[in-house]
Amino acid sequence: MNHPGLLEGNPHDRRLIERVHPTDWVQPEPRGRYNLVVIGAGTGGLVAAAGAAGLGAKVALIERNLMGGDCLNYGCVPSKALLASARRVRTGSQRNDGPPPDFQSVMNRLRSIRADISAHDSADRFRGLGVDVYLGHARFLDGRHVDVDGRTLGFRKAVIASGARPAAPEIPGLREAGFLTSETVFGLTRLPARLAVIGGGPIGCELAQAFQSLGSQVTLIHNKSHLLDREDAEAAAVVQQALIGQGIDLVLNADVQVAAVRDGARCLTIRANDGIRDVCADELLVAAGRRPAIEDMGLEQAGVAADERRGILVDDHFRTTCSSIYAVGDCCMPFKFTHAADFAARAVIQNALFGGRKKQSRLTIPWCTYTDPELAHVGLQPREAEARGIHVDTYRRDFKDVDRAVTEDIVDGFVKIHVERGKDRILGATIVGPRAGDLISEVSVAMAAGMGLGRLAQVIHPYPTFAEAIRQCGDQYNRTRLTPAVSRLFRLWLKLTR
Amino acid sequence: MNHPGLLEGNPHDRRLIERVHPTDWVQPEPRGRYNLVVIGAGTGGLVAAAGAAGLGAKVALIERNLMGGDCLNYGCVPSKALLASARRVRTGSQRNDGPPPDFQSVMNRLRSIRADISAHDSADRFRGLGVDVYLGHARFLDGRHVDVDGRTLGFRKAVIASGARPAAPEIPGLREAGFLTSETVFGLTRLPARLAVIGGGPIGCELAQAFQSLGSQVTLIHNKSHLLDREDAEAAAVVQQALIGQGIDLVLNADVQVAAVRDGARCLTIRANDGIRDVCADELLVAAGRRPAIEDMGLEQAGVAADERRGILVDDHFRTTCSSIYAVGDCCMPFKFTHAADFAARAVIQNALFGGRKKQSRLTIPWCTYTDPELAHVGLQPREAEARGIHVDTYRRDFKDVDRAVTEDIVDGFVKIHVERGKDRILGATIVGPRAGDLISEVSVAMAAGMGLGRLAQVIHPYPTFAEAIRQCGDQYNRTRLTPAVSRLFRLWLKLTR
Repeated sequence: MNHPGLLEGNPHDRRLIERVHPTDWVQPEPRGRYNLVVIGAGTGGLVAAAGAAGLGAKVALIERNLMGGDCLNYGCVPSKALLASARRVRTGSQRNDGPPPDFQSVMNRLRSIRADISAHDSADRFRGLGVDVYLGHARFLDGRHVDVDGRTLGFRKAVIASGARPAAPEIPGLREAGFLTSETVFGLTRLPARLAVIGGGPIGCELAQAFQSLGSQVTLIHNKSHLLDREDAEAAAVVQQALIGQGIDLVLNADVQVAAVRDGARCLTIRANDGIRDVCADELLVAAGRRPAIEDMGLEQAGVAADERRGILVDDHFRTTCSSIYAVGDCCMPFKFTHAADFAARAVIQNALFGGRKKQSRLTIPWCTYTDPELAHVGLQPREAEARGIHVDTYRRDFKDVDRAVTEDIVDGFVKIHVERGKDRILGATIVGPRAGDLISEVSVAMAAGMGLGRLAQVIHPYPTFAEAIRQCGDQYNRTRLTPAVSRLFRLWLKLTR
Repeated sequence: MNHPGLLEGNPHDRRLIERVHPTDWVQPEPRGRYNLVVIGAGTGGLVAAAGAAGLGAKVALIERNLMGGDCLNYGCVPSKALLASARRVRTGSQRNDGPPPDFQSVMNRLRSIRADISAHDSADRFRGLGVDVYLGHARFLDGRHVDVDGRTLGFRKAVIASGARPAAPEIPGLREAGFLTSETVFGLTRLPARLAVIGGGPIGCELAQAFQSLGSQVTLIHNKSHLLDREDAEAAAVVQQALIGQGIDLVLNADVQVAAVRDGARCLTIRANDGIRDVCADELLVAAGRRPAIEDMGLEQAGVAADERRGILVDDHFRTTCSSIYAVGDCCMPFKFTHAADFAARAVIQNALFGGRKKQSRLTIPWCTYTDPELAHVGLQPREAEARGIHVDTYRRDFKDVDRAVTEDIVDGFVKIHVERGKDRILGATIVGPRAGDLISEVSVAMAAGMGLGRLAQVIHPYPTFAEAIRQCGDQYNRTRLTPAVSRLFRLWLKLTR
């Protein structure tokens, strides 16, 4: 079935394709052995290539699709641009009924922002950094050689950064009915009046909210009992409540049984708590997780082990089962985030080229779901800590009690900070509220510095800010230190010195 | 001249006055000597009283005007509520032409928020904490006694937290023409069509922007060559440009020579760079600094030295020239901020009641001007560091290069972090951009923890966030560590291991 609402020709923006696959592009000729061959020009690959080249390494970078990878083309960049437009529409329309949002201009803005940022990731820029950029298909010949469309490149070390792509659930009729994923949704040129989103994880929630704000009637279908089920349950509930409040139709505990086209609409038959129901929409968007993109790369020839779900198997130093080949990013890491790939790539430069021993397990990786309100997390969840035998005390501050939030009519959301019981060691934190993604880094810095919550309480914050909520968790912690014995001593002293 | 636009009777909100001066209020009877008598129920006094009482001290709190002080009644709380409304109007109206903002409802919202937050500062709440609350006028009799409208209270220690109030510049005719200050402006019931603001400091800039957004034509008059002249000049310029872009009429290097009422308007005659000009408006708002409120308190009787400009003189431990009396907050500190008074009061509890030695000079006090964009600062400015003989390197990241800002169309603003040259010690930072006041606390935490910029670069931040700009300053710092010698060594190694 064709997709009349998609940009002609397909998911990608012509400007982008021309930018990264210039018609006059000339493949470089391999010049002897490379210190580092990087496969994939998404965040992980770009950081590895630029970093290694900057240190003087001879580097080849191979990309078969679009420079910039998922983050630039299908992920963070277009989705945040869309969310920003959607937020404007939403906050504007709370005030008065303006004209309906112009979807075409929203999407044009998104593509223009993407094109602007793409310059930073372009083949030309990387060639300027001294990197040999090959636009083509990489296949390992062995643990020292890779083929790119007929050319053979020799390397001392290689890094696979081939990324991931949307997983398609096994729903009978779905492929025939036709569906969008994060790779194609940003190519839409017409706003679907009705949109059904399959998957209530971060991507599903963000896009559901954006399209609902822009004027679609969205049905969000999730197979668990609540959205964002990997997050703190109370924080996820705040986001879920916000989506419901916006008018999104939520179907939880949903088992999508079959998809079909009926009267020009795409219909899903779903078994949920309340029995069987049909959901019909103009477009289906599948956001049901992502799978490592590792096929047809000659992994077997190089002795690189992988499995379909986890992707390329790496040790704690990002090394694959072939000692000359490393992997970073979505193709091998459980944390499929741009910033995780970025820092993994920095570690791999040290490990692969300079004998470093940087460990994946030492990276403290935060994350954020960019719904409104945002939901951000860093470190351990209490259940993870308890599983390691660490007892947890949680300190919580609700934004409804934070003066700045009150002046901005924010009544939902909170900061929770988890501390190892008996020791003032911050284990992790969850924040749900406006700009939680920015606020979380203050906690990350405290954790990296080994600063406890008691000491954090003494760091003066400007009044009135949202960040005060973090410091106020510290005040709560300090109050717990006033034990009955200490309190008796103070009272005695104050009586004696009255 | 009367002020028809003001809430009947005066600046204050009736609900507030009734809340804090209940008609059935019964003054407590003094019960022997107090550990601590606190004069003034603004932030400094409330924190001192609540904190001391919480530790078991016998505490009296004396307030002659409104519980909550400037912050709650005339400062942060109403101004941030007004700014939040103004921002909504501004961002909404960029999209389409809605109905004109309803000033009445904006001001009602502000008063309602103020009343909500006031519960936290109310006399009843403090009575519940075990504090003897006296609503009346405090005058010291000596260094051990204070009189409250005829009652004599004995104390071991006292804290003066009497605050500050708007300074009125010496302009002939100004008093007769009638003017608003931050104490009266929130009592307005009608939006002035034309508003002239005297003073381009934080309060002047915030209120000028708010009223311009709400529909007034604002003229902002400042006696220096640029607004916010105590701040980083480039950061102040970003705010200044935003205000001009909004249509505010700016008069710089202005010397206001005389004020007069002419044809029903309040007119100022101003000498500026371009000669003499007249500015006429419906209301004048004076925001030309604040002066300590220290008159008629019996300071001489207690031997407490003070001067009109600096206020009560205190040593580094917040002790006045009378050894039993301390002072905190706007009545004695150069940093007239709620959060500064808060932390000074915490220090004074320790110093006054428990022989602590907490020093004012050790407090790292950040601040923020809540314009759009916000301008926040912490630590030293380069000129201050250089004056102390410390050489400074500054690392800067512009938001136009930060992906999240790009997706939100933010093209102005930046993060600047100042580091001691040759040592990785963060001295201070300035941030101008959206929610800068929240972002600055990440830097404050790093400073308090002694974390350098090189290490901050290794703290993973979620992508894409504004806070990444802080980490990216760290990347720049780390690049400076790749000296030519180190670089040659790396290149040699990479050549040998190719």
